[in-house]
Amino acid sequence: MRIVVLAGGIGGARFLRGLKKAAAEAEITVVGNTGDDIHLFGLKVCPDLDTVMYTLGGGIDEERGWGREDESFRVKEELAAYGVGPEWFGLGDRDFATHIVRTQMLAAGYPLSAVTEALCDRWKPGVRLLPMTDDRVETHVAVELDGERKAIHFQEYWVRLRASVPAHAVVPVGAEQAKPAPGVLEAIGAADVILFPPSNPVVSVGTILAVPGIREAVAEAGAPVVGLSPIVGDAPVRGMADKVLAAVGVESSAAAVAEHYGAGLLDGWLVDTVDAGAVARVEAAGIRCRAVPLMMSDDEATAEMARVALELAQEVRAGE
Amino acid sequence: MRIVVLAGGIGGARFLRGLKKAAAEAEITVVGNTGDDIHLFGLKVCPDLDTVMYTLGGGIDEERGWGREDESFRVKEELAAYGVGPEWFGLGDRDFATHIVRTQMLAAGYPLSAVTEALCDRWKPGVRLLPMTDDRVETHVAVELDGERKAIHFQEYWVRLRASVPAHAVVPVGAEQAKPAPGVLEAIGAADVILFPPSNPVVSVGTILAVPGIREAVAEAGAPVVGLSPIVGDAPVRGMADKVLAAVGVESSAAAVAEHYGAGLLDGWLVDTVDAGAVARVEAAGIRCRAVPLMMSDDEATAEMARVALELAQEVRAGE
Repeated sequence: MRIVVLAGGIGGARFLRGLKKAAAEAEITVVGNTGDDIHLFGLKVCPDLDTVMYTLGGGIDEERGWGREDESFRVKEELAAYGVGPEWFGLGDRDFATHIVRTQMLAAGYPLSAVTEALCDRWKPGVRLLPMTDDRVETHVAVELDGERKAIHFQEYWVRLRASVPAHAVVPVGAEQAKPAPGVLEAIGAADVILFPPSNPVVSVGTILAVPGIREAVAEAGAPVVGLSPIVGDAPVRGMADKVLAAVGVESSAAAVAEHYGAGLLDGWLVDTVDAGAVARVEAAGIRCRAVPLMMSDDEATAEMARVALELAQEVRAGE
Repeated sequence: MRIVVLAGGIGGARFLRGLKKAAAEAEITVVGNTGDDIHLFGLKVCPDLDTVMYTLGGGIDEERGWGREDESFRVKEELAAYGVGPEWFGLGDRDFATHIVRTQMLAAGYPLSAVTEALCDRWKPGVRLLPMTDDRVETHVAVELDGERKAIHFQEYWVRLRASVPAHAVVPVGAEQAKPAPGVLEAIGAADVILFPPSNPVVSVGTILAVPGIREAVAEAGAPVVGLSPIVGDAPVRGMADKVLAAVGVESSAAAVAEHYGAGLLDGWLVDTVDAGAVARVEAAGIRCRAVPLMMSDDEATAEMARVALELAQEVRAGE
């Protein structure tokens, strides 16, 4: 079975760990969000790709959900001693090495997809990890700061400001000119199942779909497309998805997110049992829906979510 | 009193610490060797400049003589886990921050001299530290490896091979096209004394003098030029200066090094007491010479060497 997953960072990575357990024999291709990539200290940092790579490769800090386990921050402390920031972005010493290797390879002319493959040679995540694009895309968020409207990098909004001010707009700068990375459209076209993990529908899955060709490929794929709601009981499972949903005019509910993707894209949708009341509304929108526990409390609970998603895909296929 | 010192790495840095003690009121300008600079992991590393900066700024590892005190090597270990080397060059985590800041500033368009000044804003070395040039110069060493003659980077010769094979030639690649960094010629021209510390006469002081304009400025300066022998009793005080002296056809002795610089450049020369027999030979070459203890065993011993060098300069001046 060939499964394609459009993944953001922490939520996507944890879901993938469950999926690997649920479908050990499957050939999984992950199309990773690169809209939250950022240049820091002259280095190219790809937070979502790395979170997937470290999580599946056994190198993640389980507590934080991002960065390396057993991490130290001496390089960052020294940079701060030079007065060089930003201090609000947590780059650890072990993590720095990844960015150094990546930046060096990019400078040598390798595309990000080749660099990601090279990094995965070490981590062996057990999935094929593709960046959504080899081109530069940076998600910017329009906010009002000190009475002035300005666009800031997504990481600044998310990490520095902790989404504490309203987002007026979320723009994946560069997406319109971006091309899907080699293999992305082919993997989507050849998939038996396409999954949207409970990742952020705006800044993670939404950004991937903003790369011209990807949304169309998913919509036209022969395979069933099944998503898992990142909103449980009107609040994000983790992160601050509600903050950016407001920016695109979508209410923070499991049903609204399904409608936002729409029946043109989604064939099936899982909501949490607390949102069982939303099933009828989602099905009314033409999307097959089921209510099951959606808290990724451990790998087994997450694997069970993945199993249900695959079953729902099977149902969609059988129903066609 | 304005003192200009042409300095290499460890020997130069330790001498400077003594000089600062010996001439606390002096305005010291250090023209640092950049021929041993190397690009590693996409970062610009300037070993000699950093050794001077860390030593005078209180950040050096006293035991090793290079790199930061209380250092760790986690970034390097991670790079090795990615299969990315070289492993033979010891870049510590705290040291990495310096190279990251430097590389980022260079990429932003600042010349190395401005970058060095910015780094020194933190370290406050108590001297004005100028790179010999803002242009790229890399010292290469011609060696025979596996029966094949090839040119390798000085650091590879020095650090990886530990100078274990004969050096057939030492070439400061790029020196001919290099210009002295801003302030270098002005400092030399305005100096009251010019000192050559017991640094390597070929790959440290020699490389600085190879930048067109610097040798001429030193030779024509009104100030006395006094050097301290890096060779004591036919062996280098530290390092492996004898290996590269052979490459330029100079015997490894205090007198031969003085003759190598020559009376056109040097006005005074200090040899160690064990080389007292060389004084007559040096003076016969037209260079005022004295034999005094030249082991930089501690700051006070080094300060005493600096005091004698300044006295000899005073003698030269008075004798003129």
